[in-house]
Amino acid sequence: MANEKLNELKDLGEFGLIDYLTQNIKIHHSSTVKGVGDDAAVINHENRQTVVSTDMLVEGVHFDMVYTPLKHLGYKAVAVNLSDIYAMNAQPRQITVSLAISSKYSTEAISDIYEGMIHAANHYGVDIVGGDTTSSLQGLVISITAIGEAKEEELVYRNGAKENDLLVVSGDLGGAYMGLTTLQREKEVWKVNPNMQPQLEGHDYILERQLKPEARKDVITFLSQLGVKPSSMIDISDGLASEIHHICKHSDVGCSLYEEKIPIDPMTHKVAREFNIDPTICALNGGEDYELLFTVSQTDYDKIKGNPHWTVIGHMTTKESGINLISSGGSVIPLTAQGWDGLNKDK
Amino acid sequence: MANEKLNELKDLGEFGLIDYLTQNIKIHHSSTVKGVGDDAAVINHENRQTVVSTDMLVEGVHFDMVYTPLKHLGYKAVAVNLSDIYAMNAQPRQITVSLAISSKYSTEAISDIYEGMIHAANHYGVDIVGGDTTSSLQGLVISITAIGEAKEEELVYRNGAKENDLLVVSGDLGGAYMGLTTLQREKEVWKVNPNMQPQLEGHDYILERQLKPEARKDVITFLSQLGVKPSSMIDISDGLASEIHHICKHSDVGCSLYEEKIPIDPMTHKVAREFNIDPTICALNGGEDYELLFTVSQTDYDKIKGNPHWTVIGHMTTKESGINLISSGGSVIPLTAQGWDGLNKDK
Repeated sequence: MANEKLNELKDLGEFGLIDYLTQNIKIHHSSTVKGVGDDAAVINHENRQTVVSTDMLVEGVHFDMVYTPLKHLGYKAVAVNLSDIYAMNAQPRQITVSLAISSKYSTEAISDIYEGMIHAANHYGVDIVGGDTTSSLQGLVISITAIGEAKEEELVYRNGAKENDLLVVSGDLGGAYMGLTTLQREKEVWKVNPNMQPQLEGHDYILERQLKPEARKDVITFLSQLGVKPSSMIDISDGLASEIHHICKHSDVGCSLYEEKIPIDPMTHKVAREFNIDPTICALNGGEDYELLFTVSQTDYDKIKGNPHWTVIGHMTTKESGINLISSGGSVIPLTAQGWDGLNKDK
Repeated sequence: MANEKLNELKDLGEFGLIDYLTQNIKIHHSSTVKGVGDDAAVINHENRQTVVSTDMLVEGVHFDMVYTPLKHLGYKAVAVNLSDIYAMNAQPRQITVSLAISSKYSTEAISDIYEGMIHAANHYGVDIVGGDTTSSLQGLVISITAIGEAKEEELVYRNGAKENDLLVVSGDLGGAYMGLTTLQREKEVWKVNPNMQPQLEGHDYILERQLKPEARKDVITFLSQLGVKPSSMIDISDGLASEIHHICKHSDVGCSLYEEKIPIDPMTHKVAREFNIDPTICALNGGEDYELLFTVSQTDYDKIKGNPHWTVIGHMTTKESGINLISSGGSVIPLTAQGWDGLNKDK
């Protein structure tokens, strides 16, 4: 590779870099009155409620540059933020993007990250309206804030689940964690023998779940088309178990989760067994699936049943009944929230 | 100091830490429908325009823990973001706060930063509505997004300056840079002899300019009371020269800046001379003053003249006339934009 092709960030300067990175940003919404280029962006929400969420991704904690393609990283950073907005049953409209970059990154590398972000912004139809680009002493930090909107009556919080409501999850679970586990194994192999080719064939689905997850915009649309408004909703970033605990805590209810109902993709199942990990544990505690977990009234069951996009996995109970996993063997096991914890992952 | 008193972040966990940090957050605005505690915050803007700005502060780049009190750091992180909202002639209402923290920080340290942030939020009357707290491999990164609002007709952009408009700056300039220079000198002395007491007496004003700057909310209020709407406005984060270039570029005009008019505090002047630095260079290129730079029509001169909160320092010209400094000796010198550049500061 021709190293001389790689521009150093310092040659471009902060303003030059921002101009370079933002030149391909398209504006999708008339509500975006002013995007990148002033002290702040301006948004006109026309009587709708504004919804705001923010997430930070840190190199070495949330991603490992050894096996993370830069465009995918940019895409994922945006998708995981939008997931929080969809989890409010709202539509994301704008994002701001802040990057702290160490000197080991070339302009081309940052440009790739930005390309992934712009790709995600176009895919989900959101406007990149601002940001900050600065240096870091070590590694890369990405901080994204997503701004969405919804009518007041559309918003779904974590605190609306009622006793007897059905617990529903979109897609399948545990795949992102098994993708990560596979990538980490190949990294260890590579560290011992850098000439070894990675054994990633046949792992496409779980690798994509880890490296390029999608936010479930489609699920919000389907629910709206069916006329179903969830009573509570959250996105699965830390793992099913942890998110169920959040809903129960905020809604002051208990939950019965049925192990045999938890949707797990065959590839996730197979790879988990290869690693000698219980697939259910992957689904409960793996995290980073970015599926939507929601509760609906039993009266909505006819509308949601048999839909391939989601699975009923349990029901809400009284708070006193506790939060329990009903195992495939019929045992009732208190469900602990061992969600993926960003603060402890690097221990 | 009793080390056993310092809780480790990992003992608290992410959710525990967030609960702990957010327990003292007060909500100031009825527009804050939902703050911390769900996937996203919800804001009701009632037909006003939403204004959004984001900034990232990185340890070792934007601040040095050797001489930065943690509460001041939290306060400053909020103030510099709000400064961008005021620079749009808008009122900040909400902020989100993301922190990446290395394991060298105790819970008490993070709590101090948060205390400073909450103090600033209360001082400026903004609601902390969300955030993200994660670990970092090295150092501390603070990312804040500020959300404000304004009526459409109140907003002031960078691109409205007209030929003959007066160029006005609030407060005084160069102090934050001389504060930084003083702190860096004491750090070098301390590295040679850790028992040496820092020589900071008599430097209070410039140290406060560096460590605990204020956003000029008062200037926005004064202008409003006088019935003056600037034709363009920007806040001074990178230095007067750089910000003048931004206004001229966006407004397609030139500028004549008068050196003798640039407001410099006597302490800034004195310390600059001690360091053998031209005080004008401090004001032009120092940065981090967080004063407001704005242009007003000449017809507003009677309303703004003689006001102790700001100084007329020049006027806008045709683009063809260029961007010039008229020196105290009367020379016309093209003004280069050597603003403080976050990307290059650590070279």
